[in-house]
Amino acid sequence: ENILEAEPIVYRQIVVPHQSGKEYCTDAGLVVPSISYELHKKLLAIAEKHGLSLERRLEMAGVCASQMALTLLGGPNRLNPKNVHQRPTVALLCGPHVQGAQGISCGRHLANHEVHVILFLPNFVKMLESITNELTLFGKTDGKQVSSVKDLPDSPVDLVINCLDCHENAFLRDQPWYRAAVDWANQNRAPVLSIDPPVSAREQAVDAKWSLSLGLPLPLAESAGRVYLCDIGIPRQVFHEVGISYHSPFGCKFVIPLHSA
Amino acid sequence: ENILEAEPIVYRQIVVPHQSGKEYCTDAGLVVPSISYELHKKLLAIAEKHGLSLERRLEMAGVCASQMALTLLGGPNRLNPKNVHQRPTVALLCGPHVQGAQGISCGRHLANHEVHVILFLPNFVKMLESITNELTLFGKTDGKQVSSVKDLPDSPVDLVINCLDCHENAFLRDQPWYRAAVDWANQNRAPVLSIDPPVSAREQAVDAKWSLSLGLPLPLAESAGRVYLCDIGIPRQVFHEVGISYHSPFGCKFVIPLHSA
Repeated sequence: ENILEAEPIVYRQIVVPHQSGKEYCTDAGLVVPSISYELHKKLLAIAEKHGLSLERRLEMAGVCASQMALTLLGGPNRLNPKNVHQRPTVALLCGPHVQGAQGISCGRHLANHEVHVILFLPNFVKMLESITNELTLFGKTDGKQVSSVKDLPDSPVDLVINCLDCHENAFLRDQPWYRAAVDWANQNRAPVLSIDPPVSAREQAVDAKWSLSLGLPLPLAESAGRVYLCDIGIPRQVFHEVGISYHSPFGCKFVIPLHSA
Repeated sequence: ENILEAEPIVYRQIVVPHQSGKEYCTDAGLVVPSISYELHKKLLAIAEKHGLSLERRLEMAGVCASQMALTLLGGPNRLNPKNVHQRPTVALLCGPHVQGAQGISCGRHLANHEVHVILFLPNFVKMLESITNELTLFGKTDGKQVSSVKDLPDSPVDLVINCLDCHENAFLRDQPWYRAAVDWANQNRAPVLSIDPPVSAREQAVDAKWSLSLGLPLPLAESAGRVYLCDIGIPRQVFHEVGISYHSPFGCKFVIPLHSA
């Protein structure tokens, strides 16, 4: 009667309101449900209210996305002092929105790690403040910024990072710079990593090999490729405030692969 | 005459003004010179001027320090869903300064990863704004905050993180809360990680097993233990502005071990 039984592992440690549909699971078999864009937006807004400012989130998303990109580029085999003349090249395609700012933050961290980064951002008279701040910092790296697709490389790069889309203004897709950037990405034969891609009713304009979702995943389309999840530092009680019962699925990692459940 | 010779690897890729003394090297043999506290302070001030705000730095230092701590705690072997009832315990000792704020940020990320964190911070009527902000966010985790050493655990914890010291106000060391926290740490038999420890003329009050320096190392005493270096996202041209010729020693990592050269 003294037998100690191991308590069963709870695989469903995250429970969301209005269990909407698509579910993912981690390598360890933990269920990670997707949430709607509206709930995701509310989660970030509550986090900001408690002090997890956009600036902090940009820094953290940039660090974690760059850690993922550095792994995709070959990790220590590719980035070591013996390979200084074979620095990988990344083309970073950004639109004029928070998703673009996240991309620029990622690009700065990549450039800080001696990756050759070419940032495409269309010219606008007035930019979001978060974009301007990220650009100032990016400008202190050896990364290059271009505003015309003509100045992007003709030959294949090592990785394309796609931050052209945002979750709200779908009309951006009709603009000439957007079409040009999409055509360039589809012609270049490099694999594509999308950061924080939207749920799209239409197909993604650029098919991704990998997509990185932030905090909790949206129900992404097949064209998002393999889905990864990034910890953006939201504490458990913030999830609770929007009705999500939450335990971290990350273990000791900050970026984990998700599988369709 | 068509022989391609590999260019020699430049091991000294970081050159600082007034080469002061202590030098470290990375696993790959790159030389990482130490800099004085005054130059380190100037480096951070210039970085802030370009938009790498204290808030961003706190977030980044917190993420990277927590990644190091998670590895020290056993990484995936310790933090997986099967071990949910054996969560590691970390005692985080913080003083009322920026080094303390860095520690609280680290503590939040550890608590977000289901580590049992007990934060010791002495009570003060007026706190630094950066401390207050970090505390608000930490308060949304399941981490516990205490202001008396009496409320720290009697039994050994898995890791002590020491953020009691700052670089300037050495007089803090004479305060009763400081002495009490140091005595507690020295009585508890847990290994100690110091984050951003100062160069000390006196011996460290708490001997560290590991120390984490930010950006570039200070010339640390033996009692700092094994020195690690953390990338805090400073772009190359910011190093140049303070007279440091710089190439990243990090490769694809954000935290690397340093060895006495």
